[in-house]
Amino acid sequence: MSFNKRVKIKSLLAQSPIGDTVTVMGWIRTKRGNKNVNFIALNDGSTILNYQIVADPNAIQEDVLKACTTGACIKVKGKVVESQGSGQSSEIVADSIEVLGSADPEKYPLQPKKHSLEFLREIAHLRMRTSTFSAVFRVRHALSFAVHKYFNDKGFFYINTPIITASDAEGAGETFKVTTLDLGNPPKNENGEVDFKKDFFEREANLTVSGQLEGELAALALSEIYTFGPTFRAENSNTTRHLAEFWMIEPEMAFYDAEDNADLAEDFLKYLIGYVLENCEQDLEFLERRLLDEEKSKPADQRSEMALRDKLRFVADSNFERVTYTEAINILRNSKPNKKKKFQFVIEDWGADLQSEHERYLVEKHFKKPVILSDYPKEIKSFYMRENEDGKTVAAMDILFPGIGEIVGGSQREERLDVLTAKMEEMNIPQEEMWWFLDTRRFGSTPHSGFGLGFERMVQFVTGMGNIRDVIAFPRTPGNAEF
Amino acid sequence: MSFNKRVKIKSLLAQSPIGDTVTVMGWIRTKRGNKNVNFIALNDGSTILNYQIVADPNAIQEDVLKACTTGACIKVKGKVVESQGSGQSSEIVADSIEVLGSADPEKYPLQPKKHSLEFLREIAHLRMRTSTFSAVFRVRHALSFAVHKYFNDKGFFYINTPIITASDAEGAGETFKVTTLDLGNPPKNENGEVDFKKDFFEREANLTVSGQLEGELAALALSEIYTFGPTFRAENSNTTRHLAEFWMIEPEMAFYDAEDNADLAEDFLKYLIGYVLENCEQDLEFLERRLLDEEKSKPADQRSEMALRDKLRFVADSNFERVTYTEAINILRNSKPNKKKKFQFVIEDWGADLQSEHERYLVEKHFKKPVILSDYPKEIKSFYMRENEDGKTVAAMDILFPGIGEIVGGSQREERLDVLTAKMEEMNIPQEEMWWFLDTRRFGSTPHSGFGLGFERMVQFVTGMGNIRDVIAFPRTPGNAEF
Repeated sequence: MSFNKRVKIKSLLAQSPIGDTVTVMGWIRTKRGNKNVNFIALNDGSTILNYQIVADPNAIQEDVLKACTTGACIKVKGKVVESQGSGQSSEIVADSIEVLGSADPEKYPLQPKKHSLEFLREIAHLRMRTSTFSAVFRVRHALSFAVHKYFNDKGFFYINTPIITASDAEGAGETFKVTTLDLGNPPKNENGEVDFKKDFFEREANLTVSGQLEGELAALALSEIYTFGPTFRAENSNTTRHLAEFWMIEPEMAFYDAEDNADLAEDFLKYLIGYVLENCEQDLEFLERRLLDEEKSKPADQRSEMALRDKLRFVADSNFERVTYTEAINILRNSKPNKKKKFQFVIEDWGADLQSEHERYLVEKHFKKPVILSDYPKEIKSFYMRENEDGKTVAAMDILFPGIGEIVGGSQREERLDVLTAKMEEMNIPQEEMWWFLDTRRFGSTPHSGFGLGFERMVQFVTGMGNIRDVIAFPRTPGNAEF
Repeated sequence: MSFNKRVKIKSLLAQSPIGDTVTVMGWIRTKRGNKNVNFIALNDGSTILNYQIVADPNAIQEDVLKACTTGACIKVKGKVVESQGSGQSSEIVADSIEVLGSADPEKYPLQPKKHSLEFLREIAHLRMRTSTFSAVFRVRHALSFAVHKYFNDKGFFYINTPIITASDAEGAGETFKVTTLDLGNPPKNENGEVDFKKDFFEREANLTVSGQLEGELAALALSEIYTFGPTFRAENSNTTRHLAEFWMIEPEMAFYDAEDNADLAEDFLKYLIGYVLENCEQDLEFLERRLLDEEKSKPADQRSEMALRDKLRFVADSNFERVTYTEAINILRNSKPNKKKKFQFVIEDWGADLQSEHERYLVEKHFKKPVILSDYPKEIKSFYMRENEDGKTVAAMDILFPGIGEIVGGSQREERLDVLTAKMEEMNIPQEEMWWFLDTRRFGSTPHSGFGLGFERMVQFVTGMGNIRDVIAFPRTPGNAEF
C-alpha cells in the first residue's frame, strides 16, 4: 500500500484547489488558537511558505491536538477552502490529523524563537528545518542545477575527475593524506621511512585540490568539458571564507583563448544569477529580509549598499569591467587609501600581489561593479598559465565580486611544450610525474583555457550568508567533522 | 582577439550550411589521399562522427599537409560543399589549414589501428580521443544530466553530503583514513596510541562510504532530496565490477514507504535509459557495434542475447518483476541448477544470502526481465532498514538487471526510535556517536525511504562496457592512482 499520496505545499499554494479533499504531510512550525479553533502552520520543505491547517477541537481528538507541537510531523486530511485570514489564498480544514512523529517541547531545540547561526551550526542535522537554512539549501540546489543546465545546453560534457590523486603538482595548498596503513605502526622500508609501496595505492596519495589538470586532458579530446566536484585544503584557516572540503566547478575548453575564457565566465555567472532570480523568488525575498534584519545591528557603513535582489540584478545586468593587473596597480597606487597609507599593504611597485583590501577597493569603491582582472605578473601565478608576449605577465584572470572578492580564477593554459617545460624547470615542478600532462602538449596541443568557480562562495553571494559554513550542509573545518 | 570562432562538427553535421565559409578545429583521426587530393577525417569530440576535410595540395602548403598526421590538432577554414562520397551530406574544401599542435607519428600512441582496452587504460590521459571512450564519456555525461533533470523536475533538492566523515556507522566496508599527521612519526598520547586529537579534525576521519545517513537528515527537513557524489571503498578487489572511488546517486524521501520507494526507483531507471536512447543515438549505435564485434570472439552462449539498444528498449518498456526474498528462495530451491547442484552455493534454507549466480538466474533465466527483490531476512541487512510486521524481514529492496546484477539497493528506513535503538544495541552500533541520526527519530520522525544507484554500474549497463574501469575517466583501484 503506497503511503505517499500527499500533495506538496508548493503545489497546493500554486493551485489552491478549493473544494478538494487532499492529504498534506509536514512538520509543524507553530500552533496557535483557543478552545474553539487551532491554527497550525505546516511546512514540508518544498517551499519557504507554511500552509495553514485549521483544526476544530470538535473534529480532532484532544490528545492528537496536544501532540501537535512545534517540530512534530503530521499527516492531515481535509478540505481546501478559501482562507479567511490574509497572507495566503487557501487553507485546509482538517478532517483528520495523524501524528507521524512527535517532538517533545521540553527537548526539541528548534522552538519558535530566534536562534543564532552559531547555535544552529551546532545542530546542523536539524537546521535545514528552519526557514533560513531551508531557503539556503533550496537556492543551493537551484544553483547546482543551473550549472549543469548551462553547460549541457552549450554542449559541454561533465567529467568526474579523481578525488584521490597521487599528483599534487598544482601546489594549491596543503593536502590531506589518504591511506589504509596502520597509523600507529606503519610498515617501514630499509631506510626506516614509511613504506608507501605497502599502502593501498602503492604510493603516497592525497585528496585533490583541483580537477583542472585532469580536466585539461578531457578538454583536449572532447573540446569543452566541466567538472563539479569536491576539493580539499588542509589549511588551518578558521575564517568565514574557508572550508577544508568545498565544491568547485571547473570548465576547461580547447580552442578558447583568454578573451573567450573571460567571455564564458562572465556569461556563466550572469546565467546562474538570472536563474535563481527567476526560480527562487520567494526564498530570495526571505533571505533579503533576513540580511536586512541582520545588518540592522551593524554600523551604517558596514551595511550592504543594496538589498540582496537589487545586488543580484545589478550584477546580472552589468558589463564586468575588464582591467589588466598593470592598470589596476596604477589605479591603486594613485588611490586615496594608498596615498594615505590606509591599506594594510601599501602598493608601491609593479609585481606586488593584490590583497583582498585592494580587490575590494577596485570593485566596491573604484569601479562599483564586478571586475575581471587579467594579465598578472608570472611570478605570482601558477606554472600552467600561458605566458604573454611581454615575457613578464601570464594570461590569468580573476573575477572579483562586490562583498566577496575573488569568486573565479582562471587562465589560458600554456599549450607550448617548450615554454611549459622551461617554466616547470624554473619552478622545480617534477616533469617525470607529470608525463601525462606533458603528453597533451606533445600530441595535438592547442590553445585552451579554463577557470574555477568556488561553489560555496557563489552560494554565499547569492544568499547573502556571511559565513561559508552556513551554505554547505555539513561543513568541514579544523577540528570539525561532526555528522 | 577571440580565438574561438569555430563551428562544432556536431552542428555542422546537423545543419550542413552549404556554401558557407566556416572554421572548424579538431584532432585528425586519419588522412588518406594521393598527389592530387587529401581527405582528412577530423574529430572535435562534440560527436562520434568525423567530418571530412578536402585538402588540395595546390591550396595547402606541402609542409602543412605533411604535419597533418593522426593525432595532430588543426584549424581549418574553408567552404562547406555537398559531399561527393557517401556517409555524410557535407564536407569542407579547405582554403587554409593551420597546425595548432602536431603529433609525431613515431611517438603518438593512438595510431589508427585497433587498440586493446587494457592498453588504452594505461594511457587514460589520451583514451578519450578514441571513438569508444569519447562515446562512453558523452553517454556518461548524458546520464549525469538526466539524473539531475529527473530529480529537479520532480522537486527533489540536490544535497552535498560530506566526503570526509568521522562516522562509519553504515559499516558498508573498509574505509580510507584521511589525516594530516606525519605518518612516519605520528604524535602519541599517554597510552602510546596515535593521538588523533592532534589530527586536522581532532579525531579519526575517513572517506565516506555512503551519503545516506546525512541524506536522511536533509529529507526529514526538505521532504525529497538526492545526493550524487563520490564514495569510497578500501577493498582489495581487483574485479571488473569494483572501484576504490566511484559515484553514487542516493535519493532519500520523507513520506515514502517501501512501495513508493520501489515505484520511484523503477521510474527513475527507465527515465535514465529513455533519456540516453533519445539523446545519444549515434554513440549508442557505435557502442552497440563495438560490443557485437567484441563478442564475436566469445563462445555463442556467452554473447549478449540482445543488441545493446534492444536491451535498453526492453528494460525501459518492461514492468520490473516484484518478488519477495521468500518467493525468490522458493523459486531458486526448485530451480534446475539448484537441484543439479550447478550453483556454487546451493540454496537450502530460508535466510541464505543470495549470490550473484542466484540473482542472475532469477533475472536472466527465470523472469527474463529486471527484478525488484524485497523483504530480506533482517539478519543479512543493515541496522537502519525498517523491520516488517513479521519480525523476521526488513523492507529492503534490491533491483537486479540482466548482465549486471544488483544495480540499486534501498529500503524503507526504520523511523521508530525504540525499534531502531534496540536494533543498534543488538548489532553493537554505538548510539552515542549517532546522536544526530537518532535525533531525527526523536523529533518529528516519519516514514521515509531511499535507495542508492552505483553510477558506474549504470554507465556500464547503458554502454555495454564490460570493465568498470572503462566507464570512469581515471579509475582508482588497488595500486593505481595514476593521473
